Amino acid sequence: MSRTFKLTLAYDGTDFAGWQLQATDRTVQAVVEDALAPFEGRRVVVTAAGRTDAGVHAHGQVVSFALDAALSVEQLQTALNATLPRDVRVMAAEQAAPTFNARFDAKHKTYRYSIFCNDVVPPLERRQVWHVPTPLVAGAMQDAARMLIGTYDFAAFQAAGGDVVTSVREVLDSRLTVHGETWVYEITGSGFLRHMVRNIIGTLVDIGRGRWPAEEMRAILESRHRSRAAATAPPHGLTLWRVGY
Amino acid sequence: MSRTFKLTLAYDGTDFAGWQLQATDRTVQAVVEDALAPFEGRRVVVTAAGRTDAGVHAHGQVVSFALDAALSVEQLQTALNATLPRDVRVMAAEQAAPTFNARFDAKHKTYRYSIFCNDVVPPLERRQVWHVPTPLVAGAMQDAARMLIGTYDFAAFQAAGGDVVTSVREVLDSRLTVHGETWVYEITGSGFLRHMVRNIIGTLVDIGRGRWPAEEMRAILESRHRSRAAATAPPHGLTLWRVGY
Repeated sequence: MSRTFKLTLAYDGTDFAGWQLQATDRTVQAVVEDALAPFEGRRVVVTAAGRTDAGVHAHGQVVSFALDAALSVEQLQTALNATLPRDVRVMAAEQAAPTFNARFDAKHKTYRYSIFCNDVVPPLERRQVWHVPTPLVAGAMQDAARMLIGTYDFAAFQAAGGDVVTSVREVLDSRLTVHGETWVYEITGSGFLRHMVRNIIGTLVDIGRGRWPAEEMRAILESRHRSRAAATAPPHGLTLWRVGY
Repeated sequence: MSRTFKLTLAYDGTDFAGWQLQATDRTVQAVVEDALAPFEGRRVVVTAAGRTDAGVHAHGQVVSFALDAALSVEQLQTALNATLPRDVRVMAAEQAAPTFNARFDAKHKTYRYSIFCNDVVPPLERRQVWHVPTPLVAGAMQDAARMLIGTYDFAAFQAAGGDVVTSVREVLDSRLTVHGETWVYEITGSGFLRHMVRNIIGTLVDIGRGRWPAEEMRAILESRHRSRAAATAPPHGLTLWRVGY
């Protein structure tokens, strides 16, 4: 009888064309499914809580799948970490309820976005921060970040071509904290539209640069027009931090 | 008239065969000298405070060289960072006294070594920590680390083939601090023998694993025999942190 497993994955998104399986590019789904196939003698389909874009990292991505193989969660974690490339790791493994689905059962997700605010980025941090060398005003960005908390139509921050039924989402928390030269934006929500976090970041940075006052965030949100918000921030500053069930 | 410059460099050592120029391998010295050549129309010889080994990183390496070109330190820093590969950055630039030599004028250097003490290393940290999955006793390692403070003959921690006149060095500080799963060893000294920090780390970890009591550190030091100390720890946990003048 098959059992359902829940894994927590961390990955360095630098060398991946995102989560989702593609014909030719290297994706996280592909390497995880490749690593699972030998246990079952066939391809195992893996579902992720969030389908991260190319270059986006994960600290606590959650995935689910069913296996017939008789092995313990410890054996599964050890065997996968022995097989997977070093830029993906299984940080935790557990058996879940038979109906568990990492995507549809997720109650909320937290993303973090790191901005490096100084002239020169230390090389060891370059893969996981967006370098913004122009001075930013933290206070205005922090005010603007708080305006996103609540249930709104986030259409202004949705990438073109999204096929979702509704662009209404609930944001539970949205805050910017300054740690010296590294500024970290953290957002927790019931769900996210395509490029939503990166479009919010682009807008926050334009507010920090003085292009707009903080209040513009609310006006952009209420406009529900993508053209009102700023350009999409680059992917490598973004990390899927945690998924709640 | 030529002027002498002092640069502070940071680099990700992962893809370098160390600091020092070699016939074929990519080294930090080679990429820095390549970046400087166009200013002078000839190769410029660059001297580093510490000749880091392959895979070793730098947070605050200091280098010196002379230039005839008429440009400000700001122009020099900006132009170099525009030319250098992204795994090397000029973090600071200044003009120095004509006789300044980054290597011979260094009064003390600080190295940091990071150990990751848990089953699974988060992928974004994998290039800069030594993964030690076996449990370690921090207290014994901290006691042993303190035994190295002072002026001693560090021959027991010197790689074979060193050509130095004396293996006596002064260690000003030597301490291990625990930050959750990441354990950081920091050592400051007047100078370091080849592989000295990595051989100390190998020995500290063997003490942490219970192979030896903390007191063995003093016995190994006093023996002055390389064969008494543990195996050399891997390079990628090590960072040249700071150089004092």
